[in-house]
Order: sequence, then C-alpha cells, then structure tokens
Amino acid sequence: MTALPGVQALVFDTFGTVVDWRNGIARDARSFLARHKRDDIDPLAFADSWRRKYQPAMEAVRSGARPFTRLDVLHRENLDALLADHDITADEAERDWLNRAWHRLDPWPDAIPGLLRLRPKHFLAPLSNGNILLLANMAKRAGIPWDAILGAEAAQAYKPQREAYTRTAEILGLEPGQVALVAAHNGDLAAARKAGLKTAFVLRANEHGKDQATDLRADEDWDAIAGSFEELAEQLGC
Amino acid sequence: MTALPGVQALVFDTFGTVVDWRNGIARDARSFLARHKRDDIDPLAFADSWRRKYQPAMEAVRSGARPFTRLDVLHRENLDALLADHDITADEAERDWLNRAWHRLDPWPDAIPGLLRLRPKHFLAPLSNGNILLLANMAKRAGIPWDAILGAEAAQAYKPQREAYTRTAEILGLEPGQVALVAAHNGDLAAARKAGLKTAFVLRANEHGKDQATDLRADEDWDAIAGSFEELAEQLGC
Repeated sequence: MTALPGVQALVFDTFGTVVDWRNGIARDARSFLARHKRDDIDPLAFADSWRRKYQPAMEAVRSGARPFTRLDVLHRENLDALLADHDITADEAERDWLNRAWHRLDPWPDAIPGLLRLRPKHFLAPLSNGNILLLANMAKRAGIPWDAILGAEAAQAYKPQREAYTRTAEILGLEPGQVALVAAHNGDLAAARKAGLKTAFVLRANEHGKDQATDLRADEDWDAIAGSFEELAEQLGC
Repeated sequence: MTALPGVQALVFDTFGTVVDWRNGIARDARSFLARHKRDDIDPLAFADSWRRKYQPAMEAVRSGARPFTRLDVLHRENLDALLADHDITADEAERDWLNRAWHRLDPWPDAIPGLLRLRPKHFLAPLSNGNILLLANMAKRAGIPWDAILGAEAAQAYKPQREAYTRTAEILGLEPGQVALVAAHNGDLAAARKAGLKTAFVLRANEHGKDQATDLRADEDWDAIAGSFEELAEQLGC
C-alpha cells in the first residue's frame, strides 16, 4: 500500500520545502550587513525583502516580456536593487558572494533522512525555479541525494507555468501521472495537479517564521499529506 | 601544481570515456538474441551496428533538418531499423527494455575511484550526447558521483557543435577556460578546445575491442594526457 500508486519519480519544490531559505539568507546577510556597519537592518527582514522581489522578476519571463533568464541572474538584479534601496555600496566580489547565499542553504532536518529512504524506490529530482548550478552547488554542499538536477532551467519555464511540470515529466520519459510533486505550497501543487502530476503536501510551518500565515494546511485533497519527508517516506512504504 | 590551472569544473564525455558501451550493449543484446533464437548474430557486432547509426541520427539534428530530439528517441529509431535489418520482431516492452541497455552501462574500473578523488576540488558533470534520463539512470545504477547531469539535452545541441560546449560553461556560471572536457576522443577534444575549454585526454584503448584503430594516442598537445581517471586525479593534485 502506498499513497502514490504508479508514481516512479518524486520531484521537489526546493526553496521552503527542502531547504530553509529564510534563515540561510539571513545568516549570510547578517555577516554582510555587519561588515557594512548596517546593524540597523534586520537580516531576516533583508531576506524577506529580497525574496519579495522574486515573483515579479519571474513574472517578466512568464509573461514573455523577457526571454528565459536563469534565477542566479534574477537574484542578482534583485540584490542590486535591494542594496540601492538601502544605500549600500559593495564591490562585485562581495555581491557575487552574497548572491550565492542561495547556493548555501541548509535542508530542514528531516529532508535528507527522508530522501535517503525514498531514493531506492523512486527517481528523485528538484523541480525548482532555481537554476541548475544553484541547485547542484546546494546539493553538493549539503549532501542532498538527487538523481538529476531538473527544474525551471531544464524545462525553460518557471513554475507555475504548465510547461515547467509537463516538460519535467517528458525529460523523465514518464507520463505526468507517474510523477509526483512534493511541495509545501498549495499553489504549486494546484498547478502540478492541473498539469496531470500527482501531488504531495509537506507542512513547513516555519518557512516564513513564527508569524507564518500561509500554507499552514492542505487546501485540497492532495494525493499525500505529511508533516515531514520521513512521514512521507512512511506513507510510501519506504 | 596542477595540469589544469584555473579549472573549476570537469565535464566528461561518457560513452567510451566513463563507461564501456560496447560490452554493456553486447551483454543485453546477447540475452535478447538468445530469446529470439538468433545465435547467428554476434552480440558485439550487434552493438557495433547499433552504434554505427548514432552519428547519422544526430547529424539530422545538428544540420537543422530535425528539431532537437533526445538520444533515447534516436537510439530507439536506430534499434527499430536494426531489428528490421535482421528480420527480428519484438514487442514494445522488449524493445523498450533493450533500448534502455544504454542506461545500464558499466563504468571502466578506474572511473568511479578517479571521480571520487576529483570531486572534492571540482564540479563534476557529464558532457555527453546522452539525454538527462539516460545519464541519470546510469549514474544511479552504477553509483557515478556527478554533481549535476549536463550535456546535449541541457544545452539543446549535440557535440561537436560549439553550443554544446559553450552553453555547458554558461550553465555552470563559468568562462569556457574554467571548464575542462575529459574525453577519450581526439575529435571531441578538438571541438572543445575550439570553443575555449581546457582539454584532458584519457586513453581508452579497448573501447572498440582488441582491433581498435582510433584514439590510441593524443593527436594534439591536450592540457592533460592520462592513462586513467586515477592518473588524471594524480596530475591534478587530487
């Protein structure tokens, strides 16, 4: 008995679902801001502001106003704008270092133990809006056991565009229904379901800190609903 | 001291350089041919015939006569033609199983030990004409420690087209000169050098069996020349 019969590949939203982006960005922002003697700026607020520019930047690509542009480039443009907002000057090397904080995020404590249990029976890959280098550097640093790095750059489309999901299944040589998206975000799962994928919700109640107001529960009857990657492994008989 | 100063990523030709495609294909062809009572066909000759259809199939894509088509599809078309040549009928499941023999190739004995030594200091990825699923299944089965799966499908161009090399460097966020191609084939290395990559030749004297006549030596002064992946690791101070 498994919650996802017929599913051969599990693909994962990454920022928020696999890794804790907010505390990871804040960690490196804290040391950056200290070097610039800007202790007036809260590193967590800095992380939130940076992240807030993420959807509008991708929207320019999704709408066709801009050709496909990898996330490292969008993150960097957003960082440059954020530093300008705060009147911070920093040289190229420092900006590049801070931009690559997105490559140095730590997984939630249950993520790697859960993936290691899921891996013998499933093909595992990120289906993230992060670019290949970002996701591969993150995996190499943290030891995340992906079988391949998939996502927006491989599909040349940003979630929640349908092509991000369908092209990922195509690369895997599978029907959409043989692939399940694992995500902490109801909106991502809704788009995946519309594209024909199976869906698994994993609760991440602290992605946005203690005052998180979104994604505290499953909004639909997703094919699997779990409190952690280890609980998901349990439900899949792994 | 290293033979490849400034190189951060090593990308590898795969068929012939990392894995022994000829004996791997022959192994599965042998059991397929036995089931069809076709012991008159030599499995190694079957492997060679299948491989001989490889370059012409890719050439249709390289020339623009056909849109980018992943290698699993080209391999399958070539297999169907080969079976027709031999008057062999086989059902879909059997054809698919044999086609996926390319996903089940074994590495040369020094490949994984060498890659494990190279990995702490370098980003490692295949730069193969194989598609992402093929390379990822191969890595999963054999335990090849890639950091990401790159190559023709990620670059949407088949080697030796220039874009296969330059787009791979771009995905890695590196200048071409910060990337080295490792290959057992002088032609592949020549194209990589032309595109600005560094080059490392590894001798594979038995790729085509005991009568091999090609690639028995380095034809140019490649940046590194080695007899195995372990010797290459030695030369790179790993």
